[in-house]
Amino acid sequence: MVGQQQVADDGAAAAAARVAVPPAKPLLRTIGHNLMETFFPDDPFRAVTRDKGRRRRALAALRYVFPCLEWLPSYTLSTLWHDVVAGVTVASLAVPQGISYAKLANLPPILGLYSSFVPAMVYAVMGSSRELAVGNMAVGSLLFAAMMGKETSSPEEYAALAFTATFFAGVFQAGLGVLRLGFIVDLLSHAAIVGFMGGAATVVCLQQLKGMLGLVHFTSSTDIVAVVRSAVSQSHLWRWQSIVLGCGFLVFLLTLRYISKKKPRLFLLSAAGPLVSVIAGSVLVYLIHGEHHGIPVIGELKKGINPSSVKDLLLSSPHTMVAVKTGIITGIIGLAEGIAVGRSFAMLKGYNVDGNKEMIAFGLMNIIGSCTSCYLTAGPFSRSAVNHNSGCKTPMSNAVMALAVMLTLLFLTPLFYYTPLVVLSAIIITAMLGVIDYKAAGRLWKVDKVDFLVCVGAYLGVVFGSIEIGLSIAVGISVLRLLLFIARPKTMVLGKMPNSTNFRRMDQYTTAQSVPGLLVLRIDSPIYFANAGYLRERIMRWIDHEEDQIKAKGLEGLKCLVLDMGAVANIDANGTKMLEDLKKNLDRSGIQIALANPGSEIMRKMDNSKVLGLIGDEWIFLTVGEACDYAQQNCKIGTGMDVVEYVDPEDMV
Amino acid sequence: MVGQQQVADDGAAAAAARVAVPPAKPLLRTIGHNLMETFFPDDPFRAVTRDKGRRRRALAALRYVFPCLEWLPSYTLSTLWHDVVAGVTVASLAVPQGISYAKLANLPPILGLYSSFVPAMVYAVMGSSRELAVGNMAVGSLLFAAMMGKETSSPEEYAALAFTATFFAGVFQAGLGVLRLGFIVDLLSHAAIVGFMGGAATVVCLQQLKGMLGLVHFTSSTDIVAVVRSAVSQSHLWRWQSIVLGCGFLVFLLTLRYISKKKPRLFLLSAAGPLVSVIAGSVLVYLIHGEHHGIPVIGELKKGINPSSVKDLLLSSPHTMVAVKTGIITGIIGLAEGIAVGRSFAMLKGYNVDGNKEMIAFGLMNIIGSCTSCYLTAGPFSRSAVNHNSGCKTPMSNAVMALAVMLTLLFLTPLFYYTPLVVLSAIIITAMLGVIDYKAAGRLWKVDKVDFLVCVGAYLGVVFGSIEIGLSIAVGISVLRLLLFIARPKTMVLGKMPNSTNFRRMDQYTTAQSVPGLLVLRIDSPIYFANAGYLRERIMRWIDHEEDQIKAKGLEGLKCLVLDMGAVANIDANGTKMLEDLKKNLDRSGIQIALANPGSEIMRKMDNSKVLGLIGDEWIFLTVGEACDYAQQNCKIGTGMDVVEYVDPEDMV
Repeated sequence: MVGQQQVADDGAAAAAARVAVPPAKPLLRTIGHNLMETFFPDDPFRAVTRDKGRRRRALAALRYVFPCLEWLPSYTLSTLWHDVVAGVTVASLAVPQGISYAKLANLPPILGLYSSFVPAMVYAVMGSSRELAVGNMAVGSLLFAAMMGKETSSPEEYAALAFTATFFAGVFQAGLGVLRLGFIVDLLSHAAIVGFMGGAATVVCLQQLKGMLGLVHFTSSTDIVAVVRSAVSQSHLWRWQSIVLGCGFLVFLLTLRYISKKKPRLFLLSAAGPLVSVIAGSVLVYLIHGEHHGIPVIGELKKGINPSSVKDLLLSSPHTMVAVKTGIITGIIGLAEGIAVGRSFAMLKGYNVDGNKEMIAFGLMNIIGSCTSCYLTAGPFSRSAVNHNSGCKTPMSNAVMALAVMLTLLFLTPLFYYTPLVVLSAIIITAMLGVIDYKAAGRLWKVDKVDFLVCVGAYLGVVFGSIEIGLSIAVGISVLRLLLFIARPKTMVLGKMPNSTNFRRMDQYTTAQSVPGLLVLRIDSPIYFANAGYLRERIMRWIDHEEDQIKAKGLEGLKCLVLDMGAVANIDANGTKMLEDLKKNLDRSGIQIALANPGSEIMRKMDNSKVLGLIGDEWIFLTVGEACDYAQQNCKIGTGMDVVEYVDPEDMV
Repeated sequence: MVGQQQVADDGAAAAAARVAVPPAKPLLRTIGHNLMETFFPDDPFRAVTRDKGRRRRALAALRYVFPCLEWLPSYTLSTLWHDVVAGVTVASLAVPQGISYAKLANLPPILGLYSSFVPAMVYAVMGSSRELAVGNMAVGSLLFAAMMGKETSSPEEYAALAFTATFFAGVFQAGLGVLRLGFIVDLLSHAAIVGFMGGAATVVCLQQLKGMLGLVHFTSSTDIVAVVRSAVSQSHLWRWQSIVLGCGFLVFLLTLRYISKKKPRLFLLSAAGPLVSVIAGSVLVYLIHGEHHGIPVIGELKKGINPSSVKDLLLSSPHTMVAVKTGIITGIIGLAEGIAVGRSFAMLKGYNVDGNKEMIAFGLMNIIGSCTSCYLTAGPFSRSAVNHNSGCKTPMSNAVMALAVMLTLLFLTPLFYYTPLVVLSAIIITAMLGVIDYKAAGRLWKVDKVDFLVCVGAYLGVVFGSIEIGLSIAVGISVLRLLLFIARPKTMVLGKMPNSTNFRRMDQYTTAQSVPGLLVLRIDSPIYFANAGYLRERIMRWIDHEEDQIKAKGLEGLKCLVLDMGAVANIDANGTKMLEDLKKNLDRSGIQIALANPGSEIMRKMDNSKVLGLIGDEWIFLTVGEACDYAQQNCKIGTGMDVVEYVDPEDMV
């Protein structure tokens, strides 16, 4: 009884606050506000406009454009020491990895070294992630070979094509950043990225069969069927020397990785593994003259730092369109991986990485890189993890790595003459096995089956189809899922919680009770053209269902439909039309409609489209409870038993 | 004071009901339920499964497949009379319109008559709209000419191509219906359709300049610039006879239309206008021998009903792909217009049109039509409006129209020999002016500016670019808008309403009061991969903003963030990760996080992903009010003044 009284009191007290139609705002201000929220959700100018004084503002703006100005002023010797250790460690991985990935892209090995020099310098100035280490990506390298390999047979022209694709990738990346279209990268879901990267890593590992088995000719396809068939069909050409050496180094590297995983303090072992392998392999081949006994080696590498490649860019050749396409696809993949890597480390350390800034940094890296004989660079996971584990503090570690690579380019390249290719294959396989994140797939299965499906679809698409097919599947399923979510929003029946004025979902709370003669529905999404039709039909189906139940129980008929609009964030012209249609439909069946808690945008649009007048101001309520109380007192329409029979309004005239 | 006490009581009473993690449901049942909601939201089998007894169920199933079985049993003589009047009226429009549209598609005029016979019969059996009148569409006809006109110079092969495209349009439409993909048509928003149809109507009118000016050669482009240039550059070839006759009939038809709009009772005048014009024009030309004086006429039309065209279908020709593409595009447009027309009349009369059933009906119409010398048919607006105004009751009116057209084909075709083409142009222009719905554009401007933009974009795209460009713009903007809505959901600060336990948006309700030390935020959308990153940043920005304000006012620091999850319909793996990151981030700043009213799906997924354990069961509440009460009593963490300064967790080790 007390509860009842209380509810009524509560209702009366709150009834003073009605849902009002908000005053019209100036159109330009609304547009400006919406554009701001869409393209500048992080409010990047706040840091600038908050500062007082002209000089301080200019400084803040400079800091915004060049993130290095944020950490340089407070840079200390101890931080430098950390960065030097990390930079040198990463360089010891970057040199063999760079050479390996360049081979994967069918480019001269030296390009892999060039690519760890200039772009890393650019990132040190422009980058906002403290852990990201710059370099070529395995997937990007493989995509270069797969997408542009058949365009030309001349190695020089192919290299020029690679620079051109890198240039366009950079332009595309920087363009996205400047236009603040960072959210496009967000459309690739985590599940899609896990599946795609895992599939790409599998494909890259399979490609290493060529090196590991010592084969000279190999299929240019990347799918598992073609690769295995190519390897098996040439079984008479397998070289045992390559196999033994390769497997030996692979076991060595995997053991180091296993140890460093078990005892994180020994991670330097794993980080130094590739360099140790390269040195050991080179010495071994030199001693046994392996290059004459079926163990292919890298051969001569040119001394000296990056030459200019501005003149190589093919901006108006018949192959330009292929380069543009390759650039855009690899550019997106580079951004997706790089930003994901940067963000996950940033989250670990508790700071934020600005996606749009990172895009501009990546774009500049590739534009400048393409003019200095570098090909596509991003922030690969393996290298960044080593950077993080070695204790880097700022992007300065990238500069240190770049200097170490520069020294290698100037003085140490002859040492790589005898490095066996099979060691590079072992290094690639070890790096790639770390990218196949089967544990993440397991977590996806637990949390969300659809995500798991997206992940497996992308993986199988890459492994059995091609990298592009896998990417299309990943993007396609992700977007289709978003569209389906909008097209099929949830509607739920609410019931009254005992001893409370709250209404909650009856499927979730078993104690929630329906109110006789009323049907309370909640719509859990904006009402848009894509779902207005569905929602109308679904609501009518709820009403049919309710009436069937009422009939079966012989209770009083349905008098009023209460729609909880609290979760309806927005409505468009189709949505207001839907409400109008619904109102007219229900009027014919003698059912009243009441709206609870509509937002101010909804009120304004209902007012503009005259739907508000049709429904009636008195049927708009602040809470579901008030709506139900009012409806119970004021609905005196028929018994509702005749609503099932259809009456043509034209017949009544 | 009473209010205070009441609130506390209310909270205590409701505290008994906690938010529980729902028991795990069997995976297959969940998948089954989701598939059902996605593809069968209208529960089409309910009518069948509800019936008791085998025979009644079979009958219900038959009724579902053949909608004509629903109205045939109760068909009366009086209904027949209404349908005959409507059918004959529509036929009087269908004959001249059919001939005109076939000319628009560059096909033999007789095909337009064929197309009003067989497909209309099919729709009478399969259709579920009572007002839709079947026939060729102006836009579809123009698209046929624009997309396939350049493929071949032989009229026979072009006709075969048209049949093939019609066949594929039918297969595509029926396929969408059978696969229950009706929601794809919903992705075309009302605004996009208004703009696109208006643009297409404008383009069709412009094309009539050729006939009105009596020109022989004319541009094959459809954009306004090319058409006007072509017409003006040939001004020395304009024939005054054509112009005078054309303008005369145009004025006549427009006057009739104006009168029938002012006085709806006289609508028969407007419906009979085209036939009257054709008769008057033919008699005039016959009397003055106009065909020799610069007034082109239709010429001979073959007598007899539709010949078979099965053998003409080009299923494996070099042009087949063009036909497939044309078929799919025109098929979608046909569905979009037809279903929109059917639904709007159904809503007027208070019954439902099943989109998937309509798709199957349209598909069969076009598949059977393509085998009987018909080209693309749908449910054009002009014809259906006449059908509705003439008082049709059932799809039988289509059968009556078909019979009337059949009689025309068998006996009356010679009468059209002298019909001047310019009259056909006048008929097309009159019909098309009715499709340009500038009033709808005005309503869009009032209700939703973005919708208006979509509409204008599609219109300008069609008029200044091409029909395909306009369609791409319409679909592109629509989909981009949906994606943007998901990528940028709204977050709002809630405040406590006076004398109530309710929390409402502070920007909407000025009386809502913030609770000291607490920030209450509502998220108005599911948390998905596409918005997880944005939401994390936006929430952190709200907190920063709140702390700035607190600092400025010298108040107590922020203690707790309460997230109202009531409107979060779903969450995916990225979403749970976002909550985890947020929790860790806030922990560092010494801010507690509380969730209010999460749905059962959210609870399950948070539980599976271990986020629930991280946040703590005791911080999940049924209502925002309870969360705030609990937080005020239990948050004793720091003063919150040190949260702005960043503390590297690694430095603390």
